[in-house]
Order: sequence, then C-alpha cells, then structure tokens
Amino acid sequence: MIPIICFVGASNVGKTTHLERLIPELRGRGYRVGVVKHDAHSFTMDREGKDTWRLRQAGADTVAISSAEKVAMIRGTDAEMDLEMMASRLFWNEDLLLTEGFKRSRFPKIEIFRASVEKTPICTPGDNLVGLVTDDPLQADIPVFRFAEVTKLADFIEERYLKGRKRTKATVHLDGKQLPVNDFVREFLGAGIVGMLSTLRGWKSPRTIDIHLRTGDE
Amino acid sequence: MIPIICFVGASNVGKTTHLERLIPELRGRGYRVGVVKHDAHSFTMDREGKDTWRLRQAGADTVAISSAEKVAMIRGTDAEMDLEMMASRLFWNEDLLLTEGFKRSRFPKIEIFRASVEKTPICTPGDNLVGLVTDDPLQADIPVFRFAEVTKLADFIEERYLKGRKRTKATVHLDGKQLPVNDFVREFLGAGIVGMLSTLRGWKSPRTIDIHLRTGDE
Repeated sequence: MIPIICFVGASNVGKTTHLERLIPELRGRGYRVGVVKHDAHSFTMDREGKDTWRLRQAGADTVAISSAEKVAMIRGTDAEMDLEMMASRLFWNEDLLLTEGFKRSRFPKIEIFRASVEKTPICTPGDNLVGLVTDDPLQADIPVFRFAEVTKLADFIEERYLKGRKRTKATVHLDGKQLPVNDFVREFLGAGIVGMLSTLRGWKSPRTIDIHLRTGDE
Repeated sequence: MIPIICFVGASNVGKTTHLERLIPELRGRGYRVGVVKHDAHSFTMDREGKDTWRLRQAGADTVAISSAEKVAMIRGTDAEMDLEMMASRLFWNEDLLLTEGFKRSRFPKIEIFRASVEKTPICTPGDNLVGLVTDDPLQADIPVFRFAEVTKLADFIEERYLKGRKRTKATVHLDGKQLPVNDFVREFLGAGIVGMLSTLRGWKSPRTIDIHLRTGDE
C-alpha cells in the first residue's frame, strides 16, 4: 500500500492552504499525489437535480461521470470507507496519499497548529503525531516546521515515507476487507503471481499489477 | 468483468429519465447497479474555489472527499478512461454497469429513440445495437420496447447479461492496461491465486478477491 500521511488540526487553521503549498513541492520531485478530505457534513458533489444526483436517487449504488480530461465518481457507503481501502481502491496510480482530517486513523499525523485558533494542539499522545507545522514557539520532541518551511517538510516526508520502500508491495482484499499479509506472504504472493502472469503473452514487466477475481455462483 | 450495457440516443431523447425508471427495477431484483455518464463537456463536479478544486489546482492527481454516507473522487486523465478500466476500477462492488452515452464503445447498446427528436436511430450496423426503446412504429430485427415496458426491458437485460455468468471471472491490469485473458488463463489464474491465498489465515471463501501489486525499484 502507498504511504498515507494525515494532516490534522482545528477548523480554519489552514490545512487546505498548507496542502496547496506542499503538493506542488512533492509533485516537483516526481511523486504522484492523492488527497482525501474528510467531510463531517454531507458534501454536495452531486447537486440536486443534476443527472448524477437523479441516477443516485433512482438507486444506482455508484455513479461516475467521465470526459477526456477527468473522471469523477460518487458512491454510497454504509459507513465511512477506511483509508487503507481508499488507498488501494481510489488512488491506484499515486505514490502517496495525503489526508485532510482523519485524526482518529492509525496513520502518521502532521498537525497544523496556531495558538490563535486553538490553545494547544488537538493531537494527544497515542495519536501517532510525527510532525508539527506552526509559527508558535513550542517545545516538542518531534520535528517542527514553520509555515514557510515547505521544502523542509517535503524533505521529511520524502526521507521518511517515500525513499527505500520495499521492492514488492501487495494488498489483498477479500470481499472488500483487507487481508493482513506479512513480508513473507507478500513476497510469496508477489513471486507466485508474477511467475504465473509472466508466461502469458502481453507481459512486459509492469510496475503495477491489479487483479480482480469474482468467485462462486451468481 | 461485470456486464456493461450502453444506453445511447440523441440529445434530450430521455436517456437519463429512462435509466431512472430502469434502475429501481433492477435494484428490486437484487442487483447492484453502477452508472457512468459520458460528458463531452468539462463537467463541474468540483467547483472553482471549493477545497477539492483547490487541491486539484495545486497538482493533486486524484482528490477524494469522504463522509459516513458517501465517498466521491475526481481524477485527472490524459485521455478518457475506457469502460473496461472503469468497470474494474470504479465499480468494484456492482453486478452491472449501465452507461449513458459511449456510442463508440464495443459494448452492447440499447438506443432510446423518438422520431420527434431525430429522424432515424443514431446507431448504425456495426454499433452492436441489441435493443431499442421507442414509441414509434419501427421495423427492427432486435427487441423493441415501449417506454412503459420497463419490466420487459429488465427481463431482457437479466436473461441475457446477468444470469448464468461464469463461476470465476478475472481481470488483470498491468500498468493500468488490461491484459486480455482467455477462459483457460482465467481459470488457471483464478485457481492458482485462490490456491495460494487459501493457505493463509483470514481466508473464508470470499466472493471477490482484489490484489494490487507494485514491483521493481522506486
């Protein structure tokens, strides 16, 4: 799975604005960046009366709209999709997933903090906080970045999460639920599948392999 | 891959409206339905100034927004995603994909036709037209459905595309491009992967298996 880093902080502290600065820095280094924003409210990507909205109202589970430049999708869920599933399902071509929000996830967090907005950082011990972006004088045993230190923040993310990743990565979902796989299983699966596929015509040592199987009667 | 059926027809002939009637009929029979709409123009799912728009402007390749009830995603593309890729990438939990538009695809088409809108159907021989929905008196060697005959249209789709599908289905993408696999390869891959995975803890004969591998150095 690609690395996931959560940008958290109080409302209106400037999370989106800081991501807007960080993304071009990471893109400039050749990484494809995905972002997912948590929305506590019901967002309005498909507006009432529009065709996508009408089709969802009629009962379509997932509706997409596609043009030459982009594709958009909206899907109803019983519960919020977890970040692991989003990373493998929605961000199949990205190198890194940044999130806005998702404080309660298990993934590493970088908090945007301003004492003028909130008295103390919202993250507490156990939240897997790995860095702070702030202009306030603050004692911390984790890296602290000023708002202007976007390059330094990108260096930190690159060094810690993007360089020297394992040669073969594998995620396996069974009925949509991720199967935990350790390094041995990962290598075993990777080598087995690459071995089977490499006997086929059309094989040219690809960088990514995606397999979807449906089994059983229907 | 799940079956794909394209609903085509002239502008304003009532494609969305007819899909709005058909979807509940198919949903009522227990099928999970996905819809993709082709948009020749640049659609506006993320509006200027909104956070998702700002993050895409900053260079994020894919942006998603997620809540407890739904998840939406927008992704920039170099060229329009093909329907096979959409079916496996975006509609991983659906039984059927209906499209609005995509007349030039190779998939079976059902045309919505009204002589008051266009003189003749827009589909011509070679377009893989399998049915017509029309109130006009029309000679055709394919099934013709009146606008009110939604049940009959759902029967046709169910009989022809949803019943008696193969036990194991597999799609394989290498670097995002679909690898053509014949029945033998499909069974070989399916059995091989199911065999490898079934030795793992956490295995409980799932209906769907999704594997994403990344290989090579980074």
